[in-house]
Amino acid sequence: MIPNDTIIALATPSGVGAIAVIRLSGKNAITIASRYFKSVNGKNLAEQKTHTIHLGHIIDKKKIYDQVLVSVFKSPNSYTGENVVEISCHGSHFIQQQILQLFLKNGCRMANAGEFTLRAFLNGKLDLSQAEAVADLIASDNEASHQIAINQMRGGFSSEIKKLRDELLNFASLIELELDFSEEDVEFADRTQFKNLLKRIQNVLKNLIDSFAVGNVIKKGIPVTIIGEPNVGKSTLLNALLNEERAIVSEVAGTTRDTIEDEIAIGGIGFRFIDTAGIRKTDDVVENIGIKRTFEKVDQAQVIIYLFEADVFLHDDKKANAIQIEVENLKSRYPGKPLLVIANKVDKLSDVDNEKLTTILEGVHLLSAKSGIGIDAIKNRLLSQVNTGTLRTDATIITNSRHYDALLKALEEIQKVQLGMENEVSGDLLAIDIRQALYHFGEITGEISSDDLLGNIFTNFCIGK
Amino acid sequence: MIPNDTIIALATPSGVGAIAVIRLSGKNAITIASRYFKSVNGKNLAEQKTHTIHLGHIIDKKKIYDQVLVSVFKSPNSYTGENVVEISCHGSHFIQQQILQLFLKNGCRMANAGEFTLRAFLNGKLDLSQAEAVADLIASDNEASHQIAINQMRGGFSSEIKKLRDELLNFASLIELELDFSEEDVEFADRTQFKNLLKRIQNVLKNLIDSFAVGNVIKKGIPVTIIGEPNVGKSTLLNALLNEERAIVSEVAGTTRDTIEDEIAIGGIGFRFIDTAGIRKTDDVVENIGIKRTFEKVDQAQVIIYLFEADVFLHDDKKANAIQIEVENLKSRYPGKPLLVIANKVDKLSDVDNEKLTTILEGVHLLSAKSGIGIDAIKNRLLSQVNTGTLRTDATIITNSRHYDALLKALEEIQKVQLGMENEVSGDLLAIDIRQALYHFGEITGEISSDDLLGNIFTNFCIGK
Repeated sequence: MIPNDTIIALATPSGVGAIAVIRLSGKNAITIASRYFKSVNGKNLAEQKTHTIHLGHIIDKKKIYDQVLVSVFKSPNSYTGENVVEISCHGSHFIQQQILQLFLKNGCRMANAGEFTLRAFLNGKLDLSQAEAVADLIASDNEASHQIAINQMRGGFSSEIKKLRDELLNFASLIELELDFSEEDVEFADRTQFKNLLKRIQNVLKNLIDSFAVGNVIKKGIPVTIIGEPNVGKSTLLNALLNEERAIVSEVAGTTRDTIEDEIAIGGIGFRFIDTAGIRKTDDVVENIGIKRTFEKVDQAQVIIYLFEADVFLHDDKKANAIQIEVENLKSRYPGKPLLVIANKVDKLSDVDNEKLTTILEGVHLLSAKSGIGIDAIKNRLLSQVNTGTLRTDATIITNSRHYDALLKALEEIQKVQLGMENEVSGDLLAIDIRQALYHFGEITGEISSDDLLGNIFTNFCIGK
Repeated sequence: MIPNDTIIALATPSGVGAIAVIRLSGKNAITIASRYFKSVNGKNLAEQKTHTIHLGHIIDKKKIYDQVLVSVFKSPNSYTGENVVEISCHGSHFIQQQILQLFLKNGCRMANAGEFTLRAFLNGKLDLSQAEAVADLIASDNEASHQIAINQMRGGFSSEIKKLRDELLNFASLIELELDFSEEDVEFADRTQFKNLLKRIQNVLKNLIDSFAVGNVIKKGIPVTIIGEPNVGKSTLLNALLNEERAIVSEVAGTTRDTIEDEIAIGGIGFRFIDTAGIRKTDDVVENIGIKRTFEKVDQAQVIIYLFEADVFLHDDKKANAIQIEVENLKSRYPGKPLLVIANKVDKLSDVDNEKLTTILEGVHLLSAKSGIGIDAIKNRLLSQVNTGTLRTDATIITNSRHYDALLKALEEIQKVQLGMENEVSGDLLAIDIRQALYHFGEITGEISSDDLLGNIFTNFCIGK
């Protein structure tokens, strides 16, 4: 049921900035706003065209709250599909609060998390998977997750599901119609065409389901375990990897990050770096527990980095030997997993020493995290481990586990229908499975939804969206 | 000199929210924005009317940055007086950065702090004192400082100065004209009228100068020193005072304050609470240093609160006696300063005991900060110490020390002119002092300004304003 009341919330981040935007949505949004808005040139807000901006003051009983710009959006041409007013006020916390309170006392209600987007969904401005993409978009912090969210928000994925659903619905109706004429043994639904459709649906579902693995990794960041003792330069490596991105960020004043996160975007892909100690064999119980933890972390990783100090190979034969053994252990224990062996601090070594090192440890990366030597090669190795091709070709990728579950269930039903067709089961049995498949399709796009489901989805949004 | 380039900045607070607003200003702002904005219905941004909003995507070479709303403001009808574009995008940090970088690479420059407002000043949209009020408005965190800033931004104070300046300028011209005809001994400037004007100017300046004391206190918060030993309930008292405001604030989700500040707005006035220990007489050197510090803090205060636990008077005669002595000391040392003696935790006492207490200590406030008893009386006492009447009557109040200095200097010159008139000095000597007075008037409104001065003023702004 579409609600009738007018909701309000701060749409911009809380805190002090040049401006803040307060958003009202509801049948009476413009009427309510017009009561407290005095245009500089005497215009009545309620009489203004949609998508226009007006300068004036928020005033209540001669008390001036602020000079503001007010944007008017008229139903259905707004984000929510309702009448919407956006008040752009000065960015002081005090002013934001005063204006919010004024409207909360006069006909508006504080919006719940995601309620603007919920209304957009209820008013048919977005389907459910598009609405979910809005939250993903706001949460995205790298190129890849951003592109997936943008694609999904623009309907790339759900429009395909909707099209297939419509075709399937058409066959379902024909088959159900046959049931009405069951005594006459007619076939309205062309069985060959239907089989082709099922095959197509099966392919689409399988591709989408397969994409979830990469989608999930992109959303969360690709896990990379770094094995290395303290002081071999792990944080210097992370700094160096982050360096380019940081340089761009610090161009833009006011956006410096105080701490270096272990999550770093390289070439637009998020990588999650997990720090761990060495894995040397030992009889010590405590150390063995440490090694067990290390292996657990390596198990979760998609890429392993093994980092050590290059000069060990010049003056510490025992340690150098241990490193070689560790690397061999890793290779044999994780044959399929990409392993980057990196000798750090090569700036300390002569060229001859470096060459020697590469012959001892085949495929070792020579790195000076401090001076930046070897960083690009490591970035490229990391990126080559990711199926970025999928991203570049605009292929649809699933990142939402709710969608994944629905797709799995839909596929199961489609396969039941296919099996039923092969075994020539009766139309009424087919119809049940088709309806089930349609149900799961509908769950994704929101044609079928419950209050519980909507509640779950939209509480994860921020307030004001 | 009015600059020619296009500046860009994030106008909303940094951080993640539903939306963020990026602002462009400059001759080419609309042209540049139109290159990367694709309207959903194919409209060309450059051809749109001022004060209109357009839905579309920020796109560069097929890469979609975001779905956005773009607002167009055409020169001179914008905040800066230049062409202005505001891009309302999804509030992810990543998207904000991406869009900023796109435009920074394509014809825009990052705005300096306050540069949008500086341009508004240079383009004559605001005078200098109005521009300064914009920063004050954003920084204001209580009703009183907010109202002063709003008044000043709307020109309340500078328009009066401007009017007086124009009148004075008129007389200056007439007197200077007389000099050209000095041999003919004519008087173009009516001396009686001129004296009246000087008198009026003197009055206005004196009132404005006097208002600085209250204005300054309002801007910074009224200093209240709380004297009391640990655990007598200072933070409970502050919490109780803050309680009402907090209740309102927490109605609005996402705006809870984690720590209780010692600055609290009561009845729209900011109070700055300064915590300090007791002032008991002692021979101990260390304690004596502590007492010296306490007295320093009390010296700075406009109001003193003396807080103790009520039940001391029932079971600790020695302590009770010490309290009475301390209160008497405070009264004799600060005869003019309002002193609130507060007995806290009266909920522990019987009514009879409370009555006894009020007879021992005359005028004592009985308080249970925990249950809220007595809080309103204390609030009223605090508010009664402030000249809130001045605020309620829309009187103009100076809060800016730059204005204060200029007003003092202007007054000095005006008084010189008045003295010169009395002594019937020659027109050329009068003219010099009048010009000096005009100069100081001009400093306030910005008719006279230097790059240094502008630099000083606008670097205190936030970026994006």
